Amino acid sequence: MMQTFQHGGDITTFAKTCGCSLDEVIDLSSNINFVKPHIDVDFNTIDIAPYPNYDSLYQNIADHYGVLTEQMELFNGGSAGIFSLFAHMRGRHMGLPLRCTIYAPAYLEYKKAANRFEYELHIIDRFNAMDEEVAQGSFVIFVNPATPDGAFYDIQPLLKKWHNRNCTVLIDESFIEFTPHTSATGYLAQYPNLFILKSLTKYWGAAGIRMGALLSSAQNIAALRQREPLWKLSAFDAAYIQAVLQDESFAKRSEAANQESRDYLLALLKKSPLIKRIYPSEANFVLVELQGITAEELQERLTPYRVMVRNCENFDTLGKYHVRIALKELKKLQPLKEVFHA
Amino acid sequence: MMQTFQHGGDITTFAKTCGCSLDEVIDLSSNINFVKPHIDVDFNTIDIAPYPNYDSLYQNIADHYGVLTEQMELFNGGSAGIFSLFAHMRGRHMGLPLRCTIYAPAYLEYKKAANRFEYELHIIDRFNAMDEEVAQGSFVIFVNPATPDGAFYDIQPLLKKWHNRNCTVLIDESFIEFTPHTSATGYLAQYPNLFILKSLTKYWGAAGIRMGALLSSAQNIAALRQREPLWKLSAFDAAYIQAVLQDESFAKRSEAANQESRDYLLALLKKSPLIKRIYPSEANFVLVELQGITAEELQERLTPYRVMVRNCENFDTLGKYHVRIALKELKKLQPLKEVFHA
Repeated sequence: MMQTFQHGGDITTFAKTCGCSLDEVIDLSSNINFVKPHIDVDFNTIDIAPYPNYDSLYQNIADHYGVLTEQMELFNGGSAGIFSLFAHMRGRHMGLPLRCTIYAPAYLEYKKAANRFEYELHIIDRFNAMDEEVAQGSFVIFVNPATPDGAFYDIQPLLKKWHNRNCTVLIDESFIEFTPHTSATGYLAQYPNLFILKSLTKYWGAAGIRMGALLSSAQNIAALRQREPLWKLSAFDAAYIQAVLQDESFAKRSEAANQESRDYLLALLKKSPLIKRIYPSEANFVLVELQGITAEELQERLTPYRVMVRNCENFDTLGKYHVRIALKELKKLQPLKEVFHA
Repeated sequence: MMQTFQHGGDITTFAKTCGCSLDEVIDLSSNINFVKPHIDVDFNTIDIAPYPNYDSLYQNIADHYGVLTEQMELFNGGSAGIFSLFAHMRGRHMGLPLRCTIYAPAYLEYKKAANRFEYELHIIDRFNAMDEEVAQGSFVIFVNPATPDGAFYDIQPLLKKWHNRNCTVLIDESFIEFTPHTSATGYLAQYPNLFILKSLTKYWGAAGIRMGALLSSAQNIAALRQREPLWKLSAFDAAYIQAVLQDESFAKRSEAANQESRDYLLALLKKSPLIKRIYPSEANFVLVELQGITAEELQERLTPYRVMVRNCENFDTLGKYHVRIALKELKKLQPLKEVFHA
């Protein structure tokens, strides 16, 4: 029986399911950049004995995002940042009901965090009801470009609308580096209740490195830091991230390779009789609606090729015909032809 | 002017203060084991691209501590575990006052967490009032062996007393591997409100690796996990910890070398006119009360030798004459003679 995966990227379980080694899995389910940065670090020589000092790490990452270090807190990955922020917002409203508005479909950890920290949840369907009113004082979650589809939204009119409703807003920009668009960091000065989430590992191709950032006003970040331990980031991870920030040719290489793969994948999908709809994407993944075959059935047909895709049935507003496919090297996308053009 | 350090181990700031390189600092302020495990890992070959799967990591660490994986949650270091547990306990008592009883002196992050998460704080002086009553339903914090002195307490009668007062108890065993004593894990079955904190990096000599564990009943751990993100631990750190658990000669080497250094340091201190009192320690550090010289003055005299010790003035119940000195290689302890026997 096919196991249902709650999230993409669990190649260990998938390898067991199809009886192959980890190396043999073609993982099109997780959105990690397949292009890798060129780094010049010997990880065997990193001094892991002392307590880490994060000063240069904070400075380098803040510079990269164009904010002050006081406007940024680092976390052990984007998901860790999400859970900390949800806990923090809950703490500020202790004992009061707090409404969380999620523009769906969206990364599943948002709904989980909202439920776990006992928010009153409000889902807005991005595809069919973008203009729906948000409640006064909501905690608004918006992923831009969106997951699992990759659409990029003009955030300015939305920010204005939310601000008029006294909302606290989190813009998740985990995939923005894959698009040509600029970050919402330019709005931080204007909107004091704006938080921006950055992933430091999806674009730089290393989900095993756990580092993400929340950007906001210095005041908001100072309050958030109150709840954080003195040390949490690995010396290895700190070394990796600081090294990739030095790779000046990476952006160009990443863009070219992802564009080539996107073109290839879209051409392949457009001609397939199994595809009902391809969602516009500016990110490194493509969401499709299937016809005549469910996502689960598609996965069953792909498993002999050791190809893993993301069944999107468990996303709000999506159903059992929705599948997300990540951009990877052309040779990893080629096996899709065997199923989509069988 | 001598900068006051809130915590030990900030060698970066200290190196700036005394105008030397990081390598030249003799750090006797942080309690990281100076004995290092023998590991056989090439960190340059670790596949950091995929999302980490923590199954084997959890299994190996749980086996090491003699608990089930369901009884353990891993965190990015002991401090991260402390902050998560304080937030979690606060969440369970949302809107209600919650009393936290800390047996002091103790690791400073406990008091900070209690304040930040708005607990009603109760300090019990371990040295002068161990028998003081704890409030009904308190969240009790006890470090064993204790910091900053290293005393080991028979925990059984204390657990019984706290249990009779319906307390939730956290025993911090970050330094227990330096002692010959057994862990309180044996009491987990008997006391459903018992949590045990384990540090995975102090004993194994790597504060740059961020990993700690909370052990408790499967039910408590399941509740705690609700507030935790899916991924937070670095693939590098996971590889390091699993490797050190394989080093079967480490315990013996660590014990011998620390014993030699302890004997040397105690002999040196006992004969010094600057020492009023040496606190009994079973851990890898020694707390002393000075006479005729304050901790700050002692640090000033040690700075030319690039030696950094831990001024314990900011610990509850201790004062400006208290200093903690970590066990290190004999050659790093030798410069102490220049000051203690000047």
